[in-house]
Formats: sequence, C-alpha cells, structure tokens
Amino acid sequence: MTLVENNGPDARLLLAALFPHTGNAHIIGVTGPPGCGKSTLVNSFTKLCRKGELTVGIVAVDPTSPFSGGALLGDRIRMRDLAGDPGVFIRSMATRGSLGGLALATADVVQLLDAAGFDRVIVETVGVGQAEVEVASAAHSVIVVVAPGMGDDVQAIKAGVMEIADVFAVNKADRDGADHAVLALRMMQDLGKNTIGTAGRADDGWEPPIIKTVATTGEGVAELLSGLDAHRMHLHTTKQYESRERARLSRELEAILQQEVLARLRERVPTAQLEDLVDQMVARELDPYTAAQRYLASGGLE
Amino acid sequence: MTLVENNGPDARLLLAALFPHTGNAHIIGVTGPPGCGKSTLVNSFTKLCRKGELTVGIVAVDPTSPFSGGALLGDRIRMRDLAGDPGVFIRSMATRGSLGGLALATADVVQLLDAAGFDRVIVETVGVGQAEVEVASAAHSVIVVVAPGMGDDVQAIKAGVMEIADVFAVNKADRDGADHAVLALRMMQDLGKNTIGTAGRADDGWEPPIIKTVATTGEGVAELLSGLDAHRMHLHTTKQYESRERARLSRELEAILQQEVLARLRERVPTAQLEDLVDQMVARELDPYTAAQRYLASGGLE
Repeated sequence: MTLVENNGPDARLLLAALFPHTGNAHIIGVTGPPGCGKSTLVNSFTKLCRKGELTVGIVAVDPTSPFSGGALLGDRIRMRDLAGDPGVFIRSMATRGSLGGLALATADVVQLLDAAGFDRVIVETVGVGQAEVEVASAAHSVIVVVAPGMGDDVQAIKAGVMEIADVFAVNKADRDGADHAVLALRMMQDLGKNTIGTAGRADDGWEPPIIKTVATTGEGVAELLSGLDAHRMHLHTTKQYESRERARLSRELEAILQQEVLARLRERVPTAQLEDLVDQMVARELDPYTAAQRYLASGGLE
Repeated sequence: MTLVENNGPDARLLLAALFPHTGNAHIIGVTGPPGCGKSTLVNSFTKLCRKGELTVGIVAVDPTSPFSGGALLGDRIRMRDLAGDPGVFIRSMATRGSLGGLALATADVVQLLDAAGFDRVIVETVGVGQAEVEVASAAHSVIVVVAPGMGDDVQAIKAGVMEIADVFAVNKADRDGADHAVLALRMMQDLGKNTIGTAGRADDGWEPPIIKTVATTGEGVAELLSGLDAHRMHLHTTKQYESRERARLSRELEAILQQEVLARLRERVPTAQLEDLVDQMVARELDPYTAAQRYLASGGLE
C-alpha cells in the first residue's frame, strides 16, 4: 500500500498486474461538511455491512493540517471500533502535495482494495470544497451527509455538492432541526428539477432519497444501506454503471497524463531555465502565458 | 473581463500587454467555512477601505451549485450595498470546470484588476476544502474567517487552513462562544509553534493576530484593516513580499503549463485513440498507467 502511495515504477507494475482483477467493488463516495458525523456514520455503516458478510475497504481522504491532527485522532477511535476484523481495511490518505496527486493516489488505493476483493470500497472526504467533490464523485454512488443545526443548512451544502448526491443522509437526526434539514433538501431538489430539469448527477431517472440517520445508535443506517443497494441496482439496470466506470477511468487517465507530461517536461528542461523564467515574471519583463510558451518550446512541445 | 475568462488567444494578448502594469495591488485572500459571514465582512471591509480612498476589486470564487444559487443571491445583496461606486469592482467566478481551470481563471482576473490600478484585490473563496485553500493562498495576505457556534470550531478550520492564515477574524463576535473561538485559535497557534516550530505560512516572524469582528455593525473591521496593513509592511520589511510574488507566479506558470501541455497532446493524438484506450481500460484489458504511456508515446513524449 505504501509502495503504491510512493508512486514509483514498482508501484506501477503492481497496479498494472492487479488492474484486471478490479471492477467488482461497489465504490461509495461519502462527503459533507466537517462535524456532520461522517466518520461515525461510515463506521456504523461498515458494521452493518459486516453483519451481512460484506467486506469493506475505507479510504479516508483528509488533507489535514498538522495543527489539528484530526485524521489521526479519528483513525484511532475508528481503529478501536473496527479493529481485528479482517473483513475491514482502513487507510488514511493525507497527502499534502497537489490536488491532482491526491486524487490519483486515492484512485490507486481504491484499485488495490477493489483487486483485493473488498465488496464495498468507501471513499470518505473531509470538507465540502471543490476538490472533495471531485474525489468523492469518482465513485459509483455518492452519499452526501448533512446534520441539523450547522449554521445555514443550505449554505453548508453549496459548492456543487447537491448535484453529486445519489443518497442524502441527514445525520444526528435526533437533534432539533432534522425535519427542517430534510425539508430544505427536498426544496432544493424540487428547485433543481424545475430550473435545470434534472435530479442527481444526470437526468437518469434516479431521485436521491433523503434518509434520516443517527450514526451513534445505528438508527436509519439499514435504510442507508438499502438506498445504496437500490442505487447500485439502478445503475446496472439503466446501464449507467458502465458510463460511470468510463468517466471514472477517463478522469484517472487524465490525472496520470497531467502528472507524467509535466514530469517529462521537467526532465527535458533545465531547472535553471524555469527559475530564469520566473525571475523575469517577477520583474514583470515576461507575462505568464509567454513564459509558458517558451518553456514548452524548450521541451519540444511547441 | 469575459474575454479573459474565455481564455482564448485574444485574452492572452491582452494579459501579456497588461502584465507589466501589475504588481502594485495588495492581494488579499479571504476564506473560511460557509456561514461564517465572509461576504458581509468583505463588504464591510471594502466600505472602510473606500473611506480611506482605497479602491477595491473583489473576486468571489464560488463553484456554486445551480441548486442553491448562493453566489447570485449573495452578489445581488452585495451589489445593492456597494453599487454605483466606481472605486469598487466585483466579479463572481463560478467556473464549473476543472480545479486548475478555476485557479487559473482567478489568477487572470486578479491580474486584470491589478493592472487596472485597484489598490486592494480581494479573492474570496467559499468553503474550506483544499482547492479553496490553494486559491486563497495565492495572495499576499490571507484572512481566515471563523464564527462561534458553528459546530466544532477546531473541526471547521481543519484541512490546512490554519497554516495559510496571516490574520484570523472571529466574526459574529457578538454571539456566545466568541471568546471560546479565540481561545481555541490561540491554543492551536501555540500547539503549532511547539510541534512544528512555525507560526503562519513559514517561520517568518509573523504571529497571525486574532481579531474579533461583527461584520454587520462594522465592529473590529478597522482592526482587521490595520492587521492587514501591518502584515503587508511586514512582508516588505522582511523581503517576503517578493518571495510570495515568486511563489504566486510560479504556481500560475505551472497551472498554465498543465493546461497547455494537455491541450497540445490532444492536438497531436486523435480523439478516437483516447476513446479506444478508455474502452480497453473499462474492459480491464489495459491498466491506467500503461494506457497513459501509450498515449504519451503517440504524442511523441516517450
């Protein structure tokens, strides 16, 4: 696993060898604002899967700050909870490099878990930013988790998150405001249908269910599991499973290309030349687009 | 402005012509969780700048959902508030394309405003994800806004946000829990110093001030303005202004290269060939890394 994350030539050979064995796992993205209880919900969901003899791989994607150390703490709690079960594998991704790098590393680990035969692979992201949306949406089914009383419910699920949801979980549903949150989501769904004519990621005939959960007690988690299974069936019967696979793999190919092409350019063009271009930019003698042209020309990519 | 966002050849000529006139604006990034009152604070801040005869350009970066329409509504409120003042220019960026594309489009608009002579250019991002952090951190000074009572304060400012702050604003400081939020930030600062030996983005001798604000009444906004001016002075006296400019422009160059390189590859390799590679990936006959190699070989980048 570490081998794969380091992304060396050995890792690629391994991934190439394993790739034919992938394509069996149901890949589930989970996203939502910090503090909505995502991790607890994933734990609860995992325990229920295990009762049904399903194996679960969890990839927790968290570009965490060294200040907060959130991922580490969360993982310890989680490990204690699910420890010793060979049917569960948990991996935290906390790459602090580029966004593309994180997306790619996540895709690689998902493939490993898929090849290893896990029935469900859960990709859990922290935060509700654009990057988190991209990482989570590289899944077959996406759960968007919200919780009542987190400031403005509508605000909290902005930023393109609504469209990627296949299932909504209103977690902490034993708190005040849960019904309000459900209502707000339903209104946004109706609004979406009226204004752009679609619900969900595409006009695919799927209406994302809104499920109330209490992760700490397990309430509603069975409904969440059924909702996801129903979505998986829907993807298969409407042939959308393949189109999501296509989209997912195309995106991965694009991410690899971007990384590789830049790496090759760097091999071809001396570092001093790049530094020189940046110097000229800082001095306002050269604009960024012209600088890019010159760099590409030096690398033989005119 | 629209010309620039469309990113055609004309836009590049325009940006190249304007680039020598950039480098004068103080670029200020503003980020923080949804619902913390960022936009209201930016408005309040802008009004105070105007009293001091400073011109202000605002770039609101919001990959907004068509469901919520948040950016639109926010802009209308904002427009009403600051309308008719030629010393203020507001532009919403709601690119729904790739992350790199959004960062690049934002950088281009910032340059336009800089060249147009705005004294302060504010880049405001919604959300607290990794992409938002990247966009906001491409600034000379970064304000991280939090508000009391938004669930777990510490959770809400995870994800690498702490490190990029040059100034903290605890907004809605008239609410319960404001002192708690200040204390939590201070503890995280101390923790950061003890564990990794730095405060702020680098070990640069700057201790990010924590300022309580009430954006709706303007309370604390003058202190925010002084805090930012002090940071700008600090950057100049410690020669870090230039190093931040370097970092900002290097990042922009990299973003352009990433975009250009893929565009050039696409010109060289027929689309059908890419489709064919993806088909083989979906059929599990070809793994993503080998597919990337073949694509690069076809484009003459072995």
